[in-house]
Amino acid sequence: MTTPPVTREAAAALDAGSPLAGTRDRFRLPDGVVYLDGNSLGATATGVAARLAEVVEHEWQEGLIDSWNAVPNGADAWMGLPARVAARIARLVGAGPDDVHVGDSTTVSLFKTMVAARRMRPGRSVLVLEPGTFPTDGYVAAGVADLLGLELRWCDPADPAAVVDDDVALLSLTHVDFRTGAMFDLPAVTAAAHEKGALVQWDLCHSVGAVPVDLTAAGADFAVGCTYKYLNGGPGSPAFTWVSPRHQPALRQPITGWMGHARPFAMTRDYQPRDGIGRLASGTPPVLALSALDAALDAFDGVEMSDVRTVSLSLTDLFIRLLDERCGLGPVTPREHARRGSQVSFRHPQAYGIVQALNARGVIADFRDPDIARFGFAPLYVRHVDVHDAVGQLAAVLEHDEQLDPAYAERNWVT
Amino acid sequence: MTTPPVTREAAAALDAGSPLAGTRDRFRLPDGVVYLDGNSLGATATGVAARLAEVVEHEWQEGLIDSWNAVPNGADAWMGLPARVAARIARLVGAGPDDVHVGDSTTVSLFKTMVAARRMRPGRSVLVLEPGTFPTDGYVAAGVADLLGLELRWCDPADPAAVVDDDVALLSLTHVDFRTGAMFDLPAVTAAAHEKGALVQWDLCHSVGAVPVDLTAAGADFAVGCTYKYLNGGPGSPAFTWVSPRHQPALRQPITGWMGHARPFAMTRDYQPRDGIGRLASGTPPVLALSALDAALDAFDGVEMSDVRTVSLSLTDLFIRLLDERCGLGPVTPREHARRGSQVSFRHPQAYGIVQALNARGVIADFRDPDIARFGFAPLYVRHVDVHDAVGQLAAVLEHDEQLDPAYAERNWVT
Repeated sequence: MTTPPVTREAAAALDAGSPLAGTRDRFRLPDGVVYLDGNSLGATATGVAARLAEVVEHEWQEGLIDSWNAVPNGADAWMGLPARVAARIARLVGAGPDDVHVGDSTTVSLFKTMVAARRMRPGRSVLVLEPGTFPTDGYVAAGVADLLGLELRWCDPADPAAVVDDDVALLSLTHVDFRTGAMFDLPAVTAAAHEKGALVQWDLCHSVGAVPVDLTAAGADFAVGCTYKYLNGGPGSPAFTWVSPRHQPALRQPITGWMGHARPFAMTRDYQPRDGIGRLASGTPPVLALSALDAALDAFDGVEMSDVRTVSLSLTDLFIRLLDERCGLGPVTPREHARRGSQVSFRHPQAYGIVQALNARGVIADFRDPDIARFGFAPLYVRHVDVHDAVGQLAAVLEHDEQLDPAYAERNWVT
Repeated sequence: MTTPPVTREAAAALDAGSPLAGTRDRFRLPDGVVYLDGNSLGATATGVAARLAEVVEHEWQEGLIDSWNAVPNGADAWMGLPARVAARIARLVGAGPDDVHVGDSTTVSLFKTMVAARRMRPGRSVLVLEPGTFPTDGYVAAGVADLLGLELRWCDPADPAAVVDDDVALLSLTHVDFRTGAMFDLPAVTAAAHEKGALVQWDLCHSVGAVPVDLTAAGADFAVGCTYKYLNGGPGSPAFTWVSPRHQPALRQPITGWMGHARPFAMTRDYQPRDGIGRLASGTPPVLALSALDAALDAFDGVEMSDVRTVSLSLTDLFIRLLDERCGLGPVTPREHARRGSQVSFRHPQAYGIVQALNARGVIADFRDPDIARFGFAPLYVRHVDVHDAVGQLAAVLEHDEQLDPAYAERNWVT
């Protein structure tokens, strides 16, 4: 994958030689669409619909309440589902199989870990975030600060640990920027913040499943991630949370519910947290959503994240090169591999119209305020020929000034 | 429905004359099973599997990211799904259609409203609960108290407002007791607590869909409820929260995420809550789970809660009478209609063995520590003949001392 292709045939040859050549068949993608928005909502894996049908028509309908403990077909019971799904995600982020919890939204997960982190640094009253962080991260931090009387401090993304001092309890960063696709050096930033006594949390929403992450090797403290982007869990699927095993014994999260209790069905009055990561649980696990996610994770069976990274960089390299050559557009995404996630963005005054015109041509990309067009490359199902075709359509949009067409250029509400 | 039947034919006659005679066909129940655990996990409504298949194979697979704003078959988009589902639940609890939020677990919902309630009564530092409250309610309250430096106080369920004084911010009660099936007088208790300046929250987990509730008429402040019991939303389906419209403008919940923001896709740095109940939202809505719940709510189409109550009381009256007559067992559940939910429980030293032996005979009931056997009557699908048959099996279990059989009597972990 060294020589960038300029023809569709050359792109197809790269696909044929890809270490992930077979994984696209694990998804159902609509005909005639180039889907470059898997960093917003992942595509549908082949087994999801059948799995949901099985859960509804067999486990729930026939097994009824018993399926919490034993499902009628002998498959694993619902009560263990969160831990089983969590262990599958753990492998993708360098976590121990028993160190991940799955079940709440990303927002609720961030809330829990931010409060827990503050409790581990009671003498420090500052939370540090990056000004370009995904909005919900900032909103949650503001909510936690408001609740606990803390201060928010914004860092310079060029050196996030520089503002970390003895007052900082937690540095919370998004590993890959949702607008630009820029990626932090997770181990280096973690080490720098630790030197100043702060804890570090990584939001992996825009990296898990597309970029190798090794939380254990990096010695990080907390991580939270979304499962409906590169993990393809479906719209609004439950998020995951990792807590370093060294922090779990003393971890005190604020939303203490029965599923985080050591003996939930003893139904005692006093709360006693479970050992280990299970103490992050609050309410009853969302079985249907977890089952869909579980089925989606089959797409990662046998897949090595190093191969995912190889393909991701090959796809984004090609996109950046074709963007230069065919459209004369430079990316805001770093060209340096070590600083790039699996997404490429460019700025353009008519970015909104460009994205709409592309969508009309069957290339699904995404717009982000104020002037960002972003393209996500999910390595399990996006091909080099898709990159080739997408840039061809982009060049045609720009050549015909379709972005100025009122049908596309007008600003609407868009996810 | 005045003369209690003693024969199966008489029970069948009651079913034939029931105002809900047709609603059982809206569910898929396994053959040979009498399901009296719908107060733990509701049965599967007929349209759920097809709806999930449609969402996965059409809206997600074909519509991809666009389905947040417009789904390909012209159905309503995902972004409005929480509000649409919430409005359907609102009708069942006497709430305005725009005053209910759906999306988090019950536990997370309780956390949000407990914190919000405390903020509305900053000079009051006590939360009052009932000692027999569902465990997660107590655990959440303990977590909130720990976080905010509040005090927990336990009330006498015979007069919950008696301990409410000028220090009490919130009285939080479960409307129907999960062990005994006893029901509070919601309007009277609300009024009594209001007289002392406290806010009142009702946990409707064990009443919504089985007992008429009129939150508006009662002038309550907050309510939270589960949707996987009598609303049949499926295992771990999202909970709902009601906030009185008079409190919504000033409501400040602690888990401030992007979906509660006035303009989530503007992605501004500062958090600005949405007007109205939408400010309770935190993360991305769980579309698959909400879709299953939406399909399940079809079972309530055209159903009046007054009819549900009529049938519920007829079923529980019959069960109590047959329990007396055939088994010599008196219920712990109040015989007085006004104090009874849609569940009947009795105490027995071998309650666990009894429930296990009944389950083996195809009567699915539930056990709760330490000695409670409980039977839930979901009026939309439980019939009088089921009541007749269940008590017949119970009488047989007791006659043969099956509860002492080691296979049934041994204590295991049970939901």
